[in-house]
Amino acid sequence: LGQFGLDDVTRASGVVSDVVLRTPVLTSRTLDELVGAKVLLKCENLQRTGSFKFRGAFNTLASLTKEERERGVCAVSSGNHAQALALAAREFGAPAVILMPEDAPPVKIAATRGYGAEVVLYDRYSLPQDEAGRRLRDERGLVFVSSHDDPRISAGAGTAALELIQDEGPIDALIAPVGGGGGMAGYATVVDALCPGARIVGVEAEASRLATRSLAEGDRVRIEVPRTIADGQQLTILGAFPFEVMRRLDVEMVTATEDQILAAMSFLFERLKIVTEPSGAIALAALLAGTIRAPGRRVGIIVSGGNIGARRFASLLEP
Amino acid sequence: LGQFGLDDVTRASGVVSDVVLRTPVLTSRTLDELVGAKVLLKCENLQRTGSFKFRGAFNTLASLTKEERERGVCAVSSGNHAQALALAAREFGAPAVILMPEDAPPVKIAATRGYGAEVVLYDRYSLPQDEAGRRLRDERGLVFVSSHDDPRISAGAGTAALELIQDEGPIDALIAPVGGGGGMAGYATVVDALCPGARIVGVEAEASRLATRSLAEGDRVRIEVPRTIADGQQLTILGAFPFEVMRRLDVEMVTATEDQILAAMSFLFERLKIVTEPSGAIALAALLAGTIRAPGRRVGIIVSGGNIGARRFASLLEP
Repeated sequence: LGQFGLDDVTRASGVVSDVVLRTPVLTSRTLDELVGAKVLLKCENLQRTGSFKFRGAFNTLASLTKEERERGVCAVSSGNHAQALALAAREFGAPAVILMPEDAPPVKIAATRGYGAEVVLYDRYSLPQDEAGRRLRDERGLVFVSSHDDPRISAGAGTAALELIQDEGPIDALIAPVGGGGGMAGYATVVDALCPGARIVGVEAEASRLATRSLAEGDRVRIEVPRTIADGQQLTILGAFPFEVMRRLDVEMVTATEDQILAAMSFLFERLKIVTEPSGAIALAALLAGTIRAPGRRVGIIVSGGNIGARRFASLLEP
Repeated sequence: LGQFGLDDVTRASGVVSDVVLRTPVLTSRTLDELVGAKVLLKCENLQRTGSFKFRGAFNTLASLTKEERERGVCAVSSGNHAQALALAAREFGAPAVILMPEDAPPVKIAATRGYGAEVVLYDRYSLPQDEAGRRLRDERGLVFVSSHDDPRISAGAGTAALELIQDEGPIDALIAPVGGGGGMAGYATVVDALCPGARIVGVEAEASRLATRSLAEGDRVRIEVPRTIADGQQLTILGAFPFEVMRRLDVEMVTATEDQILAAMSFLFERLKIVTEPSGAIALAALLAGTIRAPGRRVGIIVSGGNIGARRFASLLEP
């Protein structure tokens, strides 16, 4: 574990770079004036499959043996990892079976099927995610690919932060969403190595506080499924691997309310002209709300995903 | 007129490059599979002020004398040129007065005021745009900046096509919206010079057919204000300058229906995760609808603007 570092991410970068999109870094003078910082938005909502998850999924598939790929892979996901793994599996010609919560956004379920995966639905409020995943793996003899609790996932995700710094130069702070922690473990590793002293801040829904509490208590807490519009953050426990990385690298945690998330989604729509899902806008939400202040600094923001239907988007923004 | 060419655009490029955003070119394998071509989306909806218009407005302001800038500039615009000129004027410290139709999208009126311009409203269904503009110019002693009928505007706009080809290499076809023709005159000039033999296709609303008819008849026709959701295309006559350029370079014209425009906006939202206004999506609309076919070709698309409020967007997409 102590060995997970920048090298893992640079190696992953070599694996994924021909397949993932080098997403643009968008900026806005209006935004900079509003928050008093230079804000660099790494737009993983524009990534293939609509989120950063494709990086880690592809990196993990690439690490499997031929025999494992022939057996096929499975996962449990509310949507973004599902689509990412489905496409990554298709790229390697491997079968994929995805267990998705019944109340996952229909657009995500449809997209996952569209990438050729078999989708099995389950009730996330009655069966823990990891238990559901284990059952599927054992019954079908598949290779389980965690959405967040695996160094290969974090190494893949970290390539987004690596590209941000390669393209824009050093940053003083990185703000990113934290769901299960898989993305943050990768970003934090890159920023810690390349921008020593930079602040690394995770943002989660106020309704969750999963990472906030886990880091404060020095141990992973388990919570009820949080009811939040940020469906990418409805986990009940942090991944063991990312938790250790986040603890070691002293990741700060803050929260954003549902209203702050909606305000950020609306801002990104009307001013930046990009579509974000709630968990994709949550890092900017904390900056816009003033929960995080970084006066005069260069602040990288991971805009992690944009998988939301137009109608769902509209209904969320209604008063 | 015969002298307007690539040099004008490359000169404009030198003038605007430090100020305009070099907008990303987005791609989508899903889109490519759907239309059977390699589609390169030049995202001017992500440009400063939310449309390509900032390029031409800034280039024109840069050409004025100190005395002219001190007098101030004026324009008539349904919105995108208004915002673009307002910001360009502010960058040069020049006053700007913008005449806007009463039924222009509120988000565009608000943004224009936000950039520091004085906004005067008029009824576009009772007073021709050019007449309204002349009156304002004469009464206030301002320098009139056309939204589309000026080589400086076209030279500025052309820099978007120049960047597209510089960043992505030669293309076999360019598809772009045509309102007054100012943008197309610039793009066509660049593509004709750098990609000889490439198709150059303009798209306008089916409810307008202004450029289609003007080019077919060999003369600029004047029409009633077309009632279309593509508010960037509600002109009643093509600009004299762009008309000549489009005729000389044999620009093809096709049209898109309101439903086709909405389908393209929805596709860009849900698959590309970007926000477009109706006239910004119209070029892709014609390709998605099959009106233009370019099998196996590399097709550049100008996504010209994204100035639309979230609520208006939602209401357009309701059945």
